[in-house]
Amino acid sequence: MKPNFSLRLRIFNLNCWGIPYLSKHRGDRMKRLGDLLNMESFDLALLEEVGGGPGRGGPAGGSPPGRPQAGVRHLPAGVERAGLPAPEAEAAARLPRRALLPEEFTQHVYTLNGYPYMIHHGDWFCGKAVGLLVLHLSGLVLNAYVTHLHAEYNRQKDVYLTHRVAQAWELAQFIHHTSKKADVVLLCGDLNLHPKDLGCRLLKEWTGLHDAYHETRDFKGSEEGCTMVPENCYVSQRELEPFPFGIRIDYVLYKAVSGFYISCKTLRTTTGHDPHSGTPLSDHEALMATLCVRHSPPQHTPDPTQGPAERSRLISVLKEAWTELDLGVAQARWWATFAGYVIGLGLLLLALLCALAAGGGVREVAILLWTPSVGVLLGAGAVYLFHMQEAKGLSRARAELQHVLGRAREAQDLGLESQPALLLGQQERDGGEEQ
Amino acid sequence: MKPNFSLRLRIFNLNCWGIPYLSKHRGDRMKRLGDLLNMESFDLALLEEVGGGPGRGGPAGGSPPGRPQAGVRHLPAGVERAGLPAPEAEAAARLPRRALLPEEFTQHVYTLNGYPYMIHHGDWFCGKAVGLLVLHLSGLVLNAYVTHLHAEYNRQKDVYLTHRVAQAWELAQFIHHTSKKADVVLLCGDLNLHPKDLGCRLLKEWTGLHDAYHETRDFKGSEEGCTMVPENCYVSQRELEPFPFGIRIDYVLYKAVSGFYISCKTLRTTTGHDPHSGTPLSDHEALMATLCVRHSPPQHTPDPTQGPAERSRLISVLKEAWTELDLGVAQARWWATFAGYVIGLGLLLLALLCALAAGGGVREVAILLWTPSVGVLLGAGAVYLFHMQEAKGLSRARAELQHVLGRAREAQDLGLESQPALLLGQQERDGGEEQ
Repeated sequence: MKPNFSLRLRIFNLNCWGIPYLSKHRGDRMKRLGDLLNMESFDLALLEEVGGGPGRGGPAGGSPPGRPQAGVRHLPAGVERAGLPAPEAEAAARLPRRALLPEEFTQHVYTLNGYPYMIHHGDWFCGKAVGLLVLHLSGLVLNAYVTHLHAEYNRQKDVYLTHRVAQAWELAQFIHHTSKKADVVLLCGDLNLHPKDLGCRLLKEWTGLHDAYHETRDFKGSEEGCTMVPENCYVSQRELEPFPFGIRIDYVLYKAVSGFYISCKTLRTTTGHDPHSGTPLSDHEALMATLCVRHSPPQHTPDPTQGPAERSRLISVLKEAWTELDLGVAQARWWATFAGYVIGLGLLLLALLCALAAGGGVREVAILLWTPSVGVLLGAGAVYLFHMQEAKGLSRARAELQHVLGRAREAQDLGLESQPALLLGQQERDGGEEQ
Repeated sequence: MKPNFSLRLRIFNLNCWGIPYLSKHRGDRMKRLGDLLNMESFDLALLEEVGGGPGRGGPAGGSPPGRPQAGVRHLPAGVERAGLPAPEAEAAARLPRRALLPEEFTQHVYTLNGYPYMIHHGDWFCGKAVGLLVLHLSGLVLNAYVTHLHAEYNRQKDVYLTHRVAQAWELAQFIHHTSKKADVVLLCGDLNLHPKDLGCRLLKEWTGLHDAYHETRDFKGSEEGCTMVPENCYVSQRELEPFPFGIRIDYVLYKAVSGFYISCKTLRTTTGHDPHSGTPLSDHEALMATLCVRHSPPQHTPDPTQGPAERSRLISVLKEAWTELDLGVAQARWWATFAGYVIGLGLLLLALLCALAAGGGVREVAILLWTPSVGVLLGAGAVYLFHMQEAKGLSRARAELQHVLGRAREAQDLGLESQPALLLGQQERDGGEEQ
């Protein structure tokens, strides 16, 4: 790599709101999105909620080996050739430039993602995931992540808070463990988290990612960078009532290892309507960022972003997340125990109904009560199993958090200058060693 | 790191058969396992099926932050302090030496793991996973993985074959993407795969891991290195009938990046009984390996293990796995479609029964048929949902395989000498660059 190496990347991110049968004007919006991506020369388009169903590409039974799988029908031809399994996941990436075909890609499905009995919310059925694309650009390794976390339906009484925190931790850990050789890390997506929410702080503190909205000096778009705005005709005005400017839940986050410098030259958002036709592309606003990566001398002086203040901020957010997950574990176990009692009672009731039906008397009533009893029994069994699995998943995340917290506290107690790097970004130190 | 760096690691691996209420003499065996690990000086004990339930450590609701979570009660005190969430997962690691406390750890739960309606097999309920421990040993980064894949209950008609291949691929991808900065990679576990099975070949070809049993010159233990042997009193003799010596399904696999050399000095297995008391520790045999890691000059000559023969072997195994997953996707979709028809018929039947019950006549029979109808309807709904998710998971793995296959074929077509490294172990090349 040349010492005066410099790279300019134009990034596009959008939650496409592409749920088959449910999202309004889906076909038309997807077509306009395709036209926009064809017209503008983005290097990387990271899309969420692309959706499958009607219009899904690829023959039934899958494409033969060696032939890239087709994507969303209305995206431009060059985009379709990227060979990514967009229709199969909640998070997908499109690479408009042929030169940017990924070296590698993989996906990680979040262990916890809401509750199957919350059918009207539907997140559980979609299967939220994080996708990773490894790109090699003139010798630079770029890890681009795209994700979509569980939605927030009621901010006052958010029953999905614990799952979203667990997902944010799983995302942070996935990035942490898979980006150790990357020079630049980019994360785009719909996090369903406000900037000061626990999950967002946890993600940023543990991965060291920076928020393009805060970093750029050239921002144009919606007020306060909001990505769900009241001007958008697809957005429920009632839900946005407490937020006059809207909410910011979609992000462009990035970082570079020591030896590289990354900055956000410009950041744009749509403002409730397509830049060309006027009608919105989605119920979310699109983010368009121009990032600039260049060589910088490796830093041997202590990094001011890894001081004691940052360390205690990390410890504080880890503790907060640990407490949230611990509450979640207790609640999941409570539900499993409750379901266990219901199973016991249901079995007793069934035995009683059998006896009544055999003995005559209220036979018809007894038989009539069989159906709801069996239903309750099966339902309680499913609830028991689900919450046992939930408790297991939350305990797992809690144990990981606890380990990191223990290490962070050890570093704080030691007060060593060399320790924070170990905690706040292994790869940054390692990247520096390579220079 | 000194140029004459050399490290000796004593590894212990065992599937503990620690399923609460189901595994025979669990308490006694766990106690003896603890005694053995206390007596022998292993550096790393990687255990599967440690189990939770009665005897699970840690107070209800979890330990407070900062205090390591307790593990299996009967393991030695030093082991309990490792702070790993063993009772919560299928795969766990114990670090008998305090000096080997992990720098980091995380877990990845496999997306697919059998069928919930196969209650008698139970794998779905356990939640199979791969655990990763990152250890820093005198400047060397060791990534130790421990896993347990879905069991094989009928080799002639193996309904779980596709899921096991998908798990092997997910495991290989997890290792591939999380070990890019590791100097040494170690994988132990119960793969439930015979050495020549598709999943085993896929894992070894894509990760470049070597089998300790084949590599060592000093092996002592069961015939052909088998880890389920007829001499073990807990093993079903009927199931092992086609295999007079037993089967080899537990492994110690390893590799080192260029610049390091790893070899297996000795490999031992138990032979159907505890080395001290005579009664087996588990229904599986334990593996005990002594590995030696030392510096070696980085190789600039083409690696003989990455020649055209190896490349075509990789392509062949990727094709085989792709075909298996493709069949799995078709089958999952068939089941989902079938369940869809059953739902339709069930709804029709329910409407008919309502009409009959309202009209009188065979009223009692109609009411009596309600219960099975509702049951069938709910069951078909669950089957539909499950197989749709299964098809999604398999499609995701198939898309990843397809991408790797495409890249491997491109490299083969180009016939470049530099390409195989890109395919057969990115980190080996990268590791070489660092020297």
